[in-house]
Amino acid sequence: MSIKGAHSACNEPTDGETLLLDRLRKAVGSKHVLTEGTALAGALSEERGLYKGNALALVRPANVEQVSEVVRLCYETGVSIVPQGGNTGLVGGGVPNGGIVLSTGRLNKIFDIDRVNATITAGSGCILAEIQQAADDAGALFPLSLASEGSCQIGGNLATNAGGTAVLRYGNTRDLVLGIEAVLPDGRILSDLNGLRKNNMGYDLKNLLIGSEGTLGVITAVVLKLFPKPVQRMTALAACTDSQAALDFYGMMRTKNADILSAFEFINRFALQTVLDHGGGSDPFGDIHPCYCLIELSSINPDDELRSRLEATLTEAFETGAVLDAVIGASETQNEALWQLRERIAESQKFEGASIKHDVSLPVSKLAEFIEEAVAACLDHVPNVRPCYFGHFGDGNLHFNFTRPKDMSDADFLAEYASVNRIVHDIVNRMSGSISAEHGIGRTKREDLHRYKDPVAIEVMRQIKSALDPKGLMNPGKVL
Amino acid sequence: MSIKGAHSACNEPTDGETLLLDRLRKAVGSKHVLTEGTALAGALSEERGLYKGNALALVRPANVEQVSEVVRLCYETGVSIVPQGGNTGLVGGGVPNGGIVLSTGRLNKIFDIDRVNATITAGSGCILAEIQQAADDAGALFPLSLASEGSCQIGGNLATNAGGTAVLRYGNTRDLVLGIEAVLPDGRILSDLNGLRKNNMGYDLKNLLIGSEGTLGVITAVVLKLFPKPVQRMTALAACTDSQAALDFYGMMRTKNADILSAFEFINRFALQTVLDHGGGSDPFGDIHPCYCLIELSSINPDDELRSRLEATLTEAFETGAVLDAVIGASETQNEALWQLRERIAESQKFEGASIKHDVSLPVSKLAEFIEEAVAACLDHVPNVRPCYFGHFGDGNLHFNFTRPKDMSDADFLAEYASVNRIVHDIVNRMSGSISAEHGIGRTKREDLHRYKDPVAIEVMRQIKSALDPKGLMNPGKVL
Repeated sequence: MSIKGAHSACNEPTDGETLLLDRLRKAVGSKHVLTEGTALAGALSEERGLYKGNALALVRPANVEQVSEVVRLCYETGVSIVPQGGNTGLVGGGVPNGGIVLSTGRLNKIFDIDRVNATITAGSGCILAEIQQAADDAGALFPLSLASEGSCQIGGNLATNAGGTAVLRYGNTRDLVLGIEAVLPDGRILSDLNGLRKNNMGYDLKNLLIGSEGTLGVITAVVLKLFPKPVQRMTALAACTDSQAALDFYGMMRTKNADILSAFEFINRFALQTVLDHGGGSDPFGDIHPCYCLIELSSINPDDELRSRLEATLTEAFETGAVLDAVIGASETQNEALWQLRERIAESQKFEGASIKHDVSLPVSKLAEFIEEAVAACLDHVPNVRPCYFGHFGDGNLHFNFTRPKDMSDADFLAEYASVNRIVHDIVNRMSGSISAEHGIGRTKREDLHRYKDPVAIEVMRQIKSALDPKGLMNPGKVL
Repeated sequence: MSIKGAHSACNEPTDGETLLLDRLRKAVGSKHVLTEGTALAGALSEERGLYKGNALALVRPANVEQVSEVVRLCYETGVSIVPQGGNTGLVGGGVPNGGIVLSTGRLNKIFDIDRVNATITAGSGCILAEIQQAADDAGALFPLSLASEGSCQIGGNLATNAGGTAVLRYGNTRDLVLGIEAVLPDGRILSDLNGLRKNNMGYDLKNLLIGSEGTLGVITAVVLKLFPKPVQRMTALAACTDSQAALDFYGMMRTKNADILSAFEFINRFALQTVLDHGGGSDPFGDIHPCYCLIELSSINPDDELRSRLEATLTEAFETGAVLDAVIGASETQNEALWQLRERIAESQKFEGASIKHDVSLPVSKLAEFIEEAVAACLDHVPNVRPCYFGHFGDGNLHFNFTRPKDMSDADFLAEYASVNRIVHDIVNRMSGSISAEHGIGRTKREDLHRYKDPVAIEVMRQIKSALDPKGLMNPGKVL
């Protein structure tokens, strides 16, 4: 792919663009300003192929000073920037529409691990799995964990306030961050790489940048919290009569075992069936049940009786009828097999045809009511649509998807994408939920953000955006 | 006190001020616009008598709509506002300098407790102890706890991102907040009273308001997280050879017992001695030791063997020499007596004469090095000064105080306030610490904020302040 096809306005770079490219090459070195080739092509789209963009160049600065220089040059010339980490986002937030793509991939140094302070300081281009590994090597846990951990970068995790499977115990990405360094839209470097647990010196600019999806600046380095490593874990799958029963069971687990509960995931039968049919694995139960809860317990205390605590709560849940049956993993292999029943849903679902997806959250107390109402409304709208929902029940977060009816074409079903989204999101909104629990807004949900978010909040976001990025050059067209 | 003495610019209210007062009376009712009397007088100063301000009136709106109307009227007429909760702050942040004082005291309703979602929704004027009690009545824990909990308001806790004794386990105030409602400087109402554990719908405006000390708006209501209530607790006091030994001991406690460790407080000998001499209580040890660690363990699991886990770690600490001696509370009465040795330091210290105080935080790994260096530097500057330091060791937070030398007058010692502050804060800054760990900036530390904070961060704070409060009316002269 050449620059001719890759940038937006015309087929040849303008004189101004050519001059900018020259200056960028001086700033970061010629081989790190890519105007053609597979690296650039990869940066212009995302894995699922839903979005395809264009850009003048892919620019790969090596350190914060170079990032600052790149951003300053773009600011001076009015050229927009899309900051890009591992490009694993699910809402098109990293796909450019002209301007340059600024890759954080070379900011990939782990600067420091402080075992006593329990912190790790790293460049934003570090792969999440590398950070997990570095923590592990130091005898500690960095708990952030998500499907794309082998390729996503920690800077992108911060930019999107990534969630994942460990939120219930350890919080979202923003809860794991102590310090930050970022380059602002005009090139200024904001330096706050502190490793402090308490620090009330002025406004919380760190959290403003976290979750702003690259629209307020480029995160270049972070200080992250580390935790003591659990020394034992236990995984179980419980079968429940319905989502209200699953919710009741969650309440029992939380009250009795919040200190050891590291995951409480919900899976409806259809979701499990797709994994059994297409993803491998076998049904741990002899009977078919309406839905399932995948539970992980873990403890840093070797003497904690995870099994007896779990069994006591299961017994209580059997007695109330909330849980119908349960299996407990007897080995790490079995634990892993149980987890795969949850992890493989997204890929297995594809085999059943097109899906319409939602990443929503509700107050935990509203989950069952939401599921009942939203499933009924969507079935009413698309008869025989197949609800496929699962997710982080303990966080109130559902991946609330629908697979096309067996006898409907993908195209006919996908024509209903907007209308089904609207039905689901209207119910979410009425129940005081969020239409983006963990994936962010990006391009995909920009209209919905404006539909559902408090208009005053949108105004304030615009005021802040204008104050920090008066030319509107940092990841334009995303979020706002 | 009459309005004549109470407002800044002149002895009589101007025509514009009189008109404003009339409109404020219409908005909130005549009896809630106080231009004289003890309530107003109380709002003009703070408990310690360090700051004394003046104001046109104390205005007490009853709900968010009234707050909005009051703020809008002030915005239109260019009159400044100091939002005030329980007025228990320690940095002069709630003391007015002209304009009006807006009391949140009547926003004191608890709107909702959702046991399944584990949240409480409350007006910002609720007293912290009332919220703790409401949570307790619902069988849950709201963990925020600090000395002023009987009179401070939750809105003020948010505005200052209050810390306290439970931060080690549950985080700072900002970590306990899910949703917020606030009135912005121009009177707009920002509504985000969500109870969601995951929500990535746009910029994090909640955390921008939390810790902004009333300079960006008036917090009117909050949604707070609740936690399962511990069913057992254990308190212990350990005597250590020095602060490095205490730090080593903390490392052992955290590695082995992070899941049950709810407090790890440090007390130097002089601080303990002041309590023994002036605050009541008796030394639990036969010998005098250089310093002490107060530990609290707690668990929601009735079967957790707190005592044996504690003893195992203490044994390890005895063997390495980190801990010299230890006592474990055998009853709630004994636990409470041990806690009083920590809680009574601030009041007992007064009997030894004037103090110069600091509320600092360091990376935990730097605590011992900091103490050694800063004590030496201050002794060098004021020979025979008596170091009195204690605090939340596990959070890296020290209340790092100095009591005057025995043979020095209070006045002579307090003349050194600024120079001692400078010595201590310079060392804090060099060791990547914070000069305000939990008390905030207010008036007291405004100059120091500008001295030590990244200038780019200050600029960004100003940009945000200007965007949201272009007339500079919301708590002027504080923070920025």
